[in-house]
Amino acid sequence: MNELVMELDSRSGRHLYEQIYDHIRQEIRGRKLLCGERLPSTRSLAEYLQVSRSTVDLAYEQLLSEGYIESRPYKGFFVCKIDGLYDLQNPVGKSGQTKEAQPRRFLYDFSPNVVELGSFPFSTWKKITKNTLIDDKKEMFALGHPQGDLELRATICHYLHVSRGVNCLPQQVIIGAGNDYLLLLLEKILGRHRKVALENPTYKRACQIFRSFAYQVETIPMDGGGMRADILAQSSADLAYIMPSHQFPTGIVMPIGRRMELLRWAAQEEHRYLIEDDYDSEFRYRGKPIPSLQASDEAGKVIYIGTFSKAIAPAIRISYMVLPEKLLECYRQQCMFFSSTVSRIDQSVLNVFIRDGAFERHLNKMRKIYRSRHDRMLQCCRKYLKNVTISGENAGLHLLLHYQGEKTERELLHLAAEKGIRVYGMSDAYIGRLPDNWQPTLILGYAGLQEEEIETGIRILSDCI
Amino acid sequence: MNELVMELDSRSGRHLYEQIYDHIRQEIRGRKLLCGERLPSTRSLAEYLQVSRSTVDLAYEQLLSEGYIESRPYKGFFVCKIDGLYDLQNPVGKSGQTKEAQPRRFLYDFSPNVVELGSFPFSTWKKITKNTLIDDKKEMFALGHPQGDLELRATICHYLHVSRGVNCLPQQVIIGAGNDYLLLLLEKILGRHRKVALENPTYKRACQIFRSFAYQVETIPMDGGGMRADILAQSSADLAYIMPSHQFPTGIVMPIGRRMELLRWAAQEEHRYLIEDDYDSEFRYRGKPIPSLQASDEAGKVIYIGTFSKAIAPAIRISYMVLPEKLLECYRQQCMFFSSTVSRIDQSVLNVFIRDGAFERHLNKMRKIYRSRHDRMLQCCRKYLKNVTISGENAGLHLLLHYQGEKTERELLHLAAEKGIRVYGMSDAYIGRLPDNWQPTLILGYAGLQEEEIETGIRILSDCI
Repeated sequence: MNELVMELDSRSGRHLYEQIYDHIRQEIRGRKLLCGERLPSTRSLAEYLQVSRSTVDLAYEQLLSEGYIESRPYKGFFVCKIDGLYDLQNPVGKSGQTKEAQPRRFLYDFSPNVVELGSFPFSTWKKITKNTLIDDKKEMFALGHPQGDLELRATICHYLHVSRGVNCLPQQVIIGAGNDYLLLLLEKILGRHRKVALENPTYKRACQIFRSFAYQVETIPMDGGGMRADILAQSSADLAYIMPSHQFPTGIVMPIGRRMELLRWAAQEEHRYLIEDDYDSEFRYRGKPIPSLQASDEAGKVIYIGTFSKAIAPAIRISYMVLPEKLLECYRQQCMFFSSTVSRIDQSVLNVFIRDGAFERHLNKMRKIYRSRHDRMLQCCRKYLKNVTISGENAGLHLLLHYQGEKTERELLHLAAEKGIRVYGMSDAYIGRLPDNWQPTLILGYAGLQEEEIETGIRILSDCI
Repeated sequence: MNELVMELDSRSGRHLYEQIYDHIRQEIRGRKLLCGERLPSTRSLAEYLQVSRSTVDLAYEQLLSEGYIESRPYKGFFVCKIDGLYDLQNPVGKSGQTKEAQPRRFLYDFSPNVVELGSFPFSTWKKITKNTLIDDKKEMFALGHPQGDLELRATICHYLHVSRGVNCLPQQVIIGAGNDYLLLLLEKILGRHRKVALENPTYKRACQIFRSFAYQVETIPMDGGGMRADILAQSSADLAYIMPSHQFPTGIVMPIGRRMELLRWAAQEEHRYLIEDDYDSEFRYRGKPIPSLQASDEAGKVIYIGTFSKAIAPAIRISYMVLPEKLLECYRQQCMFFSSTVSRIDQSVLNVFIRDGAFERHLNKMRKIYRSRHDRMLQCCRKYLKNVTISGENAGLHLLLHYQGEKTERELLHLAAEKGIRVYGMSDAYIGRLPDNWQPTLILGYAGLQEEEIETGIRILSDCI
């Protein structure tokens, strides 16, 4: 226990468990505690430090969740292999993963999963929250409608119509705590034994979720217009999960012709549906805004899903799903007993935030910030990086660098990591085998970095490429 | 459209759709619009009133959801049969259904699904919310750990240990937006093709949810000690969903012997588990507090589920599930990609609310209020009602009246409804056939009524029984 000699300061204002966690973390990162070394049991460390056992438990749990230590049944806790800390295997997801769960050893993290939180209008949000708690009191604390409060649904309808061309009535909208929850609900609406077609590469988490439904997952290759409708038609899929306005991770925008092909495919069979994930449509910097696929849907074949996590903040656990009439019937019969997952207070705050224009102001502000970062990123990549071509620009919160040199994608990530730069490999977004003509491709998000950080980060990256 | 001549006041501060809704509702309740009558189309009413069509849509949607009108495809909207408004068919659920969805025509509603909201410490909640938004800003808006924030999990562990004898570590706790969501997650953890044993009568919504998983549902009869372990052992179930500390709706407390039998049953096969729903354990007015079943579980066979909806408020969409070690492994491998459904702001507010003692003060206050209502209810039932025996007293938020007269349960509900009293039939809580020796039984909740209301309500009820 030599390395665990530490001084706890009970008056420092920091939790004791945090102090223990910090100390052990430093020891591991400083290689004073080595890979494979066994930590003292929580009981003995608690006795030794004269703290409660649950304090040590908390510290170990935090270390566990961050991958510093691992637990072996009946044996205890052991220090993990330090290289594992880079966590390069971790597949890239488009929606925010918990940043806290990653060891913070990168100088610049080009994660496509974070958003800029510094510009969030905290004071407005706080003011609305305060007013909500004054005005409505009792009703706010009662359980609301399973689909979400009518006012918020009406506000979302209006917003989606104006901004995305979505045509729907409030009764078609279901509000839920995050896209993952809405997909869980959708499983109950669509029923079992489904076969879902995914773009490849795609948002890997959606694939994991569909697999957890025991849905058969089929990947459909893409061309410059997105998912190939001819190959979809040859598949046995009866669902297709697509991101037509800004595909993740490729950034492809599906042209109207392809959209029509997909809508026709869906219309051919009663049980076929298209699941449109419109995950970051708010951010487009060049060219005309692109309407949603749902806007062109006349046969009631599109299930439209969107979220406020990207445009407001990941912690705002409010997403929405627009169901076509026919599925609304299924929902009412089979799922209406699932009570709402979003508190009415949050719903009311968000409703006022949108209704009174604060959301629009926030969006415009963020669009401007993100556009500058996007432009700076593009500029820097062109200036500093050789051997790469760029794609996926002009929208969203990330772009792609296609590499033409000798190194493998994994080597690139490693070289960058050694210099403190975290970039992400596109191969992680593929399901199954990589395409034959595969070339290493890096995903670089810019939403969470200042412009100067982008410049410095790309300059450092240029040494590795 | 004669009956729809109405004056809208755009400066009244009330939404136009609400005014339209109110007017039509009054017309239907006043029998000026009769059953089967067709309402004007939303388009023509919108033109007629010179409002936007979506305003009329909203009004109709509200009327639809409350059962005043129905929509017939290609034909339009029609006034419903007014008797249908009593909504007697509606099965009773233990957790709060939306009260707004019921027409408000009862003088006294003995719903077992509501809680007293007037005593909620709004100002404390508001103050904590305000401080949370000041103190922590950025982190609060980032996505947190999929299981919920460590601090809140630690606080819940401590609370459950002290109040319910639950033994667990924070890493075993999963926080989710409501029990229904946690059950959805549990389906993914436990896997498919499960057979779940339910008490009969039981909490019907759980049954609906398990059926939506395509789990095979088996009902197991109960005796005075709860679910019959001998019959369970003969069944093919590998899961049992039970409420051992205060069964809904019977109020039965499972004695320690029966608990041991069930734990032994679960321990006999690796894949067997007990799902303990500890839904209203906070409220016990006489006798020793009853520890949870999980407290006696040494083999890691109990999945413990609880909620803050009853003890705080239904709109607080925060529930918790404690997983045994083995299932925690499954969760980590199969479900950790489902992101948290509870906003970090709410988690933080609740954490402070519990940690700083406000929750305990609130619970003690509510226990006192509910105990008085419980006592008054018991007193009034004994004083005014003949032909009934009482059971399920001393805990929870409802009790049972077993009726020995000539009328059917349905007749009793009808007679009461005609006098403006809403009571609930226990037969709705049964799955399948009623037992042979069935006698009509009423469920009377008292949490949402003042003591004088309880007295008056029971006095009126005595005329019907």
